[in-house]
Amino acid sequence: MSSSRRDFLKIASLSAGAMMLNPFQLIASATQSTIFSGNKMKLRFRPYTLELKHVFTIATSSRTTTPVMLTEIDYEGFTGYGEASMPPYLGESQESAAAFLSKVDLGQFNDPFDLETILAYIDGVAPGNPAAKASVDIALHDLIGKLLNAPLFKIWGFDKTKAPYTSFTIGIDKPDVVRQKTKEAGEFKILKIKLGRDTDKEMIETIRSVTDQPLCVDVNQGWKDKNFALEMIHYCKEKGVVFIEQPMPKEDLDGNAWLTERSPLPTIGDEAVQRLPDVMKAHKVYSGINIKLMKSTGLREAHKMLTLARALDMKVMLGCMTETSCAISAAAQLSPMVDWADLDGALLISNDIYRGTEVIDGKVILSDGPGIGIKKI
Amino acid sequence: MSSSRRDFLKIASLSAGAMMLNPFQLIASATQSTIFSGNKMKLRFRPYTLELKHVFTIATSSRTTTPVMLTEIDYEGFTGYGEASMPPYLGESQESAAAFLSKVDLGQFNDPFDLETILAYIDGVAPGNPAAKASVDIALHDLIGKLLNAPLFKIWGFDKTKAPYTSFTIGIDKPDVVRQKTKEAGEFKILKIKLGRDTDKEMIETIRSVTDQPLCVDVNQGWKDKNFALEMIHYCKEKGVVFIEQPMPKEDLDGNAWLTERSPLPTIGDEAVQRLPDVMKAHKVYSGINIKLMKSTGLREAHKMLTLARALDMKVMLGCMTETSCAISAAAQLSPMVDWADLDGALLISNDIYRGTEVIDGKVILSDGPGIGIKKI
Repeated sequence: MSSSRRDFLKIASLSAGAMMLNPFQLIASATQSTIFSGNKMKLRFRPYTLELKHVFTIATSSRTTTPVMLTEIDYEGFTGYGEASMPPYLGESQESAAAFLSKVDLGQFNDPFDLETILAYIDGVAPGNPAAKASVDIALHDLIGKLLNAPLFKIWGFDKTKAPYTSFTIGIDKPDVVRQKTKEAGEFKILKIKLGRDTDKEMIETIRSVTDQPLCVDVNQGWKDKNFALEMIHYCKEKGVVFIEQPMPKEDLDGNAWLTERSPLPTIGDEAVQRLPDVMKAHKVYSGINIKLMKSTGLREAHKMLTLARALDMKVMLGCMTETSCAISAAAQLSPMVDWADLDGALLISNDIYRGTEVIDGKVILSDGPGIGIKKI
Repeated sequence: MSSSRRDFLKIASLSAGAMMLNPFQLIASATQSTIFSGNKMKLRFRPYTLELKHVFTIATSSRTTTPVMLTEIDYEGFTGYGEASMPPYLGESQESAAAFLSKVDLGQFNDPFDLETILAYIDGVAPGNPAAKASVDIALHDLIGKLLNAPLFKIWGFDKTKAPYTSFTIGIDKPDVVRQKTKEAGEFKILKIKLGRDTDKEMIETIRSVTDQPLCVDVNQGWKDKNFALEMIHYCKEKGVVFIEQPMPKEDLDGNAWLTERSPLPTIGDEAVQRLPDVMKAHKVYSGINIKLMKSTGLREAHKMLTLARALDMKVMLGCMTETSCAISAAAQLSPMVDWADLDGALLISNDIYRGTEVIDGKVILSDGPGIGIKKI
């Protein structure tokens, strides 16, 4: 009896939608009002493919689209929006996200505000799947912000006017394309370039031929030798670079620590820093960390990573994948507390479907809307 | 001109109250509406003396009263409540708190939600004064909870049903008094005893003559020799003690670390852990930390300490001074996330003036009221 009731609950919460109350549910409702309150959270998800404005090339691959999964959680007439962005080289896909999200049963929780408990459950549904997990975390945060009628940055006590400028990424490409892209990025106060190939110095010289803007460099683990990496960082410093992201392979803790100790520029761990326990491991190996919601499983763990990194006196950068304004606006809620933001993900796509956080003259401008502050376009 | 305007602003915010707009203010208002929004926060404070039900004795002193300072912050028709509790041996007083709070100018801030900015300002008003700072932090948190119409535990994503049992402190006293106090504490699931004198074993034996309840032990730095301390901890373990708080002098990092490595019970740093930077220093010196709002300067830093300690895989205990239900209810908002709570402070006084978090059958029961969830009695 109690086992069949649990099965029914599961089916009821999975079938979701505008399902009518059946007699079984009405009977149960009379005896267990807190469970059958009619206020179940309902999770929906659908795949979507982001079209990139330019072919996107990093040290290890090129592509023209990014697969994402869009989520929505309904509760008491409010809808929270979420997103999983899954660049293929990170190992998740629309198929893996759908499989993960199909296993999620939010119907067992009565209160979306119990984030610590709900997100611990989400994390335990299956190992890995950080982007899929983030898509639930973001939708829940958006939902509770709407229930409180306040943006998350405000709920967290942050001053939105302290949001930083965002860097804008210039992908690896032929010199004339790089020059063109750099010119188009004139409004940005800091440009990000992807290095880690044989053409690194050529890339920097090409950009320096059209702009004096500060640069930041993402090596994506591309420098394999620590002495070469140090020499490159000195060269970068002379060329007006502000910091160096993931200079060497993440497995090479000693090499990265050696480099950080000697580097004239801050080093930032990115591939090396996925989730909360990685922050301690990055301490004294890098000067700082790059927090991304698609690595951290979402906002709640990202917030904890931020707090921990600050307590360890580390620099904090906030990054993204190519994403719609949904995941970007979510990340932006944390941006008043970081040193550098790299939140250009929605600017790199041609088919965004949300409007929220904007970039104006290179600065991250958070909307005052509740939750993550987005609307469907 | 701009300097005299600033002076005026300062006076305007200090005089506060139902002051009428004067022509000068109206002129300024036309040009700087965000500054003269009419929505200034107003801070009030008044001293109050807590009467203790029993003479309270720890290793270093005895007393029958505790001086506190009660604060209120008014904003847009809402009032946030705060409190500074200042046991004399910690160095603050009603005089020092009044001097500190007189310097605080909240009129310069337009939005009470900018907690990160406002509390950084409060911290910079003067060094020290952690309890006075906490009295502002608590009132601000209560205020924003009321503005959001939600309790803080909910805003923070915690499940109130996970709040722990609180220990109840049995002070050092003559055996018959100890036996009497222990019997009166029958509803509590865990008792806290203060050791660190020649009579430690007698104290434990006295309590064990009337109850088998689990105990926790607060030594208040009273054991000076590490071998003696280790021997005492083994004795305590045999007697059903759960953890040992501040076994040795806080300055003795090596001694406490040596002890923690060998101790069959978790050790908790209390006097050694005041604020956020102390958490890292306590790592590997103690098994855990005791967070108290009157040490941490309030809820925001306490929340960060909790996050950091968890990331370091340390135990967390939540403690208090003798306090009204104001500061106790504030601390209790964090309690669903801690291992042990020692939130008996309001139960030890006879003249509480608030009702909020309650202790029922030894368990911390958070109210569902907004903010810290208290009402004046």
